[in-house]
Amino acid sequence: MKNLVLTAALAAGLALPGLAQSSTAMTDQQAFQQGTFHGATADQAQYHVIYQLDSDDPKLIQQTLRNIGNALEDTRLKGKLTVELVAFGTGVAVFRKDQSYEPQLTALKQKGVILAQCLNTLKEKKISKDELLPLIAYVPSGNGELIIRQAQGWSLVHP
Amino acid sequence: MKNLVLTAALAAGLALPGLAQSSTAMTDQQAFQQGTFHGATADQAQYHVIYQLDSDDPKLIQQTLRNIGNALEDTRLKGKLTVELVAFGTGVAVFRKDQSYEPQLTALKQKGVILAQCLNTLKEKKISKDELLPLIAYVPSGNGELIIRQAQGWSLVHP
Amino acid sequence: MKNLVLTAALAAGLALPGLAQSSTAMTDQQAFQQGTFHGATADQAQYHVIYQLDSDDPKLIQQTLRNIGNALEDTRLKGKLTVELVAFGTGVAVFRKDQSYEPQLTALKQKGVILAQCLNTLKEKKISKDELLPLIAYVPSGNGELIIRQAQGWSLVHP
Repeated sequence: MKNLVLTAALAAGLALPGLAQSSTAMTDQQAFQQGTFHGATADQAQYHVIYQLDSDDPKLIQQTLRNIGNALEDTRLKGKLTVELVAFGTGVAVFRKDQSYEPQLTALKQKGVILAQCLNTLKEKKISKDELLPLIAYVPSGNGELIIRQAQGWSLVHP
Repeated sequence: MKNLVLTAALAAGLALPGLAQSSTAMTDQQAFQQGTFHGATADQAQYHVIYQLDSDDPKLIQQTLRNIGNALEDTRLKGKLTVELVAFGTGVAVFRKDQSYEPQLTALKQKGVILAQCLNTLKEKKISKDELLPLIAYVPSGNGELIIRQAQGWSLVHP
Repeated sequence: MKNLVLTAALAAGLALPGLAQSSTAMTDQQAFQQGTFHGATADQAQYHVIYQLDSDDPKLIQQTLRNIGNALEDTRLKGKLTVELVAFGTGVAVFRKDQSYEPQLTALKQKGVILAQCLNTLKEKKISKDELLPLIAYVPSGNGELIIRQAQGWSLVHP
């Protein structure tokens, strides 16, 4: 009996997700060739994504904030997407008081987006928390956050 | 009995993948130190990857198309890799009729690569579908596509 | 009985991870709103990450090497993180003898970091192994390495 249980459990835990994934992809590939593919199907109850911002290029910052908005509004994900934005390196610019992103960040926070700044960056760049907007949280390192989130099954977007 | 079943199932579903992953990594680390590491082992039946293109830099576009070709030709993945290319933001350039990527895109499509354009980008940039090559598909948002694909277990490459 | 086993196994293999993930995210979102969020919780025994380097920009190379150091020192990951750095495209610069990264690479190798160069890049750019530092390993393609590692459950960081 133990063997049967283990065999069933192994089959369920290891083989089924693989099968499901593979058959989905086959269908999408075929649909694309036939001109009937309209995007991946979101059949999970919840989705999670971490956005990586490690640049102070104003165009890239705007693109990142706009991308988060687009993901939250995607009809496939609406109401079931958790988002975290993590800034590190020169990306700290997005959270600086002397920049102009506060209205957009406030709006994202009201939609449930987690706003996280890397503490390592503050140390390396000798930046004080007083220079940053009070609405954010701090994480030990931006890279650690990216690694742990993905291990938790979160998707990654790096615009 | 129920407890035994649940314990076995939990062990199979949660602990085994972790163990397997960990022991593989240990072996690769040791092999690298001994000078006998030649790349990760591809022991799965199927692989899936989504390529992110969000730039109109011709060098980056060429690099992305070349990278997809290299992945499909990697001896470890040959014949078992499903690829989707999703373009958004200024990355829409790769699918424009007035650009010169059609021959490469046609070749990739013949190899089974899914070519997907973000509809949000068309709306934001006021681009008509008539301006784009007819061989592509459209998805609600490029960011949504990246998020859903990774949640389905697909790998991500952003050249 | 078989049905019960399968049901339990399916529940364990498919539903539980989703539930666990979702409840973690809810908690972090709530903690963030309340000002008590201090970063994702690392409750796994082992973590694995592959770093992608595909640029010869000296600032980006330095940032990548520094990022790897930061991840290894993150208090949440210390002692349980396996790292691989894969270079391809113009990223091969980091491993060239005529560059100055050898001391940093040697230090990372001593900490267990796997250093891998894409063989496709050498062929395309007609670079001989003699031009590169002897402390590295070679993999068939950098893109293949990124794809296989993520399929093995590794996280991806592309600085």
